[in-house]
Amino acid sequence: MALIVKKFGGSSVATPEKIFNIVDRVLNEKKENDQIVIVVSAMGDTTDELVSLAKQITSKPYGREMDRLLSTGEQVTIALMAMAFTERGHQAISMTGPQAGIQSSAAYGKARILDVFPERVFSALQAGNIVIVAGFQGIVENGDIATLGRGGSDTTAVALAGAMKADVCEIFTDVEGVYSTDPRIASDAVKLQEITYGEMLEMARLGAGVMQPRAVEMGSRYGVPIHVRSTFSTNQGTIIREEYTVESNKRVITGVADDINAAKVSLVGVENKPGVAATVFKALADKNIDVDMIVQSIRSTDDAVTDIIFTILCDDVPLAREILDKLHETIKMESINIDENMAKVSIVGAGMLGQPGVAAQMFGILGEEGINIEIISTSEISITCLVAENRVKDAVRLIHEKLFLGERG
Amino acid sequence: MALIVKKFGGSSVATPEKIFNIVDRVLNEKKENDQIVIVVSAMGDTTDELVSLAKQITSKPYGREMDRLLSTGEQVTIALMAMAFTERGHQAISMTGPQAGIQSSAAYGKARILDVFPERVFSALQAGNIVIVAGFQGIVENGDIATLGRGGSDTTAVALAGAMKADVCEIFTDVEGVYSTDPRIASDAVKLQEITYGEMLEMARLGAGVMQPRAVEMGSRYGVPIHVRSTFSTNQGTIIREEYTVESNKRVITGVADDINAAKVSLVGVENKPGVAATVFKALADKNIDVDMIVQSIRSTDDAVTDIIFTILCDDVPLAREILDKLHETIKMESINIDENMAKVSIVGAGMLGQPGVAAQMFGILGEEGINIEIISTSEISITCLVAENRVKDAVRLIHEKLFLGERG
Repeated sequence: MALIVKKFGGSSVATPEKIFNIVDRVLNEKKENDQIVIVVSAMGDTTDELVSLAKQITSKPYGREMDRLLSTGEQVTIALMAMAFTERGHQAISMTGPQAGIQSSAAYGKARILDVFPERVFSALQAGNIVIVAGFQGIVENGDIATLGRGGSDTTAVALAGAMKADVCEIFTDVEGVYSTDPRIASDAVKLQEITYGEMLEMARLGAGVMQPRAVEMGSRYGVPIHVRSTFSTNQGTIIREEYTVESNKRVITGVADDINAAKVSLVGVENKPGVAATVFKALADKNIDVDMIVQSIRSTDDAVTDIIFTILCDDVPLAREILDKLHETIKMESINIDENMAKVSIVGAGMLGQPGVAAQMFGILGEEGINIEIISTSEISITCLVAENRVKDAVRLIHEKLFLGERG
Repeated sequence: MALIVKKFGGSSVATPEKIFNIVDRVLNEKKENDQIVIVVSAMGDTTDELVSLAKQITSKPYGREMDRLLSTGEQVTIALMAMAFTERGHQAISMTGPQAGIQSSAAYGKARILDVFPERVFSALQAGNIVIVAGFQGIVENGDIATLGRGGSDTTAVALAGAMKADVCEIFTDVEGVYSTDPRIASDAVKLQEITYGEMLEMARLGAGVMQPRAVEMGSRYGVPIHVRSTFSTNQGTIIREEYTVESNKRVITGVADDINAAKVSLVGVENKPGVAATVFKALADKNIDVDMIVQSIRSTDDAVTDIIFTILCDDVPLAREILDKLHETIKMESINIDENMAKVSIVGAGMLGQPGVAAQMFGILGEEGINIEIISTSEISITCLVAENRVKDAVRLIHEKLFLGERG
């Protein structure tokens, strides 16, 4: 007997027919005494359609009412799926996020799950039901509904699985699992059998899009294994967990990630006095602009000026330019240069700890190919290089081939 | 300062544009310190579309999951309308039925409002909001949502108005108010200024479709005036209340109603022994068949047989025929005749009490025109005659002209 939480996204429940496909699959895979909780998203394009309705009303920012509106999509799916299980002869019951005990912050549109009280889910399972829970939503302390933001249904599933001490949380997706790198860039990418929460988080942060970081964090917090697998096949996918269970799955490098949504900002010849960097980064942070890969280089110790270089998301460039131009009025600097044609290439792997040679190998591979490294940043389990956007795919392919595949061969 | 509850149906909120029309109208009519609560239905054909989705999943009867599904329609409307008020610069907040404190029975699909705890609505009003409440839904004791069945949004509005001791509950509709008879039948029908709850209930029971009886009952229970008025004009409509406030509005006859959904059932030559009638009517009641206008005529005191005649809804004829044929196996009777080409014409008016001449006038008018009366039934404030369906419009026109208009002239 196992307690399993399964999450299906919007495209896999887009029509009544597809809902029946999921229902039949779940019933086929279910062992006799398994307890099954299913977390679902809104059907197909429902959320986009609701957003478009709201845009016909107002251009004001999202808030409480938008969350009320969007949360109806998942309520439709859970009701229909419960009906479909009943139609197939299996007892089932639907629950909204609030009914399943998902308590969230009041940050409408991007609420965080604060706690989960799944008592009602347990009772329904014990009464013999398959329980279908609306993803992407939680209840705020004041009784209002809030949505969890991007990838919210993944987070719901993992949090629920964690709070219920489920044996596994299965995230069904349109790919077969987590790959060593993007298979669209490197056709020799390998599906990983296992990956640790830490590595998965680092992969996600550095551009690998399979799992939302919040869901992985939730898995890490509760220690529940996350099985990323395909909606379209019954193949084993990738298990995200605390530690490797099979020695041979453990490698120096777990994966190679890339992210083309990076712009390099150079503040050249900034007056070198205390507080200048703080002023710059506070102004950007106040407008929610994420800053990464910061380098401050002092030209010489007695020089009165310095260069501050960092990366931001390309999406944030217009706003950042506005803020920096404004700062330029009060902070002396020679020039502000923003280059959007940049990309990050990263290697991730818990095994790199204490293996300093890996960084040198990575820089060497890029150097041999004439790919210039603009900035380097490192974490305990990753190394990232900023390179020209038009060379990043070459960089991914080469690093993957020589470091990931080379290591295995 | 007044506290007003306004209810708008699905066709008046079918598009974002129509929602803005309602919002602008409400803001135009609002006096400075008025407190406004708006109850809305699902947009346009939303409910039908949701039902059609469910039908693609299952043909099983409606239940908890169907109510979950249908209740999303109103949640979409309230969110969009709250956004629209905010867009127009007025503070507004949406509430589901449960949030507005509408507690209902667990009879999914046709739940009854058991109680209303509008504390949250009061707080929101006091904070300066227009409050928009989802009609047609309540919360069951177990925390599930249930829908109220036909006309449910009217019932929500009146119950809320009653519990909040609102000054008036305005029901916006596609007609100008309650008429003395159906204007499509009698072009000289008159819009009533006032009508009592009792008369309105009797009109509804006897075929006048403007207001659902449950909503009128709710108004009567709480003593809240209901103003039935047009979505398309700002004219005064009809006020439904306990007693007439203007002497000249009080008449012997308030209105003439008709109902063509009536079939006459005749059980001819039934063995005349105790318990037979009870057996027949219990069998019909067990299958939820409403029986009306019962006449039992004993041919002569020492006769061994009797005739039992009554009316049912035309919709129930097939089921009734099945039940009666089955009873015929155990109860001796000469024949069972069912005539679906029947209709009821009724006069309603609290003023008829103690005016026995009115009945005679009604029968006289029908007799003069050669319209045969098959059955007569009376209540304290109504007289109903069963006539041939192809003569009922004539009957309505004549009775309305001679008794309603004649009385006024």
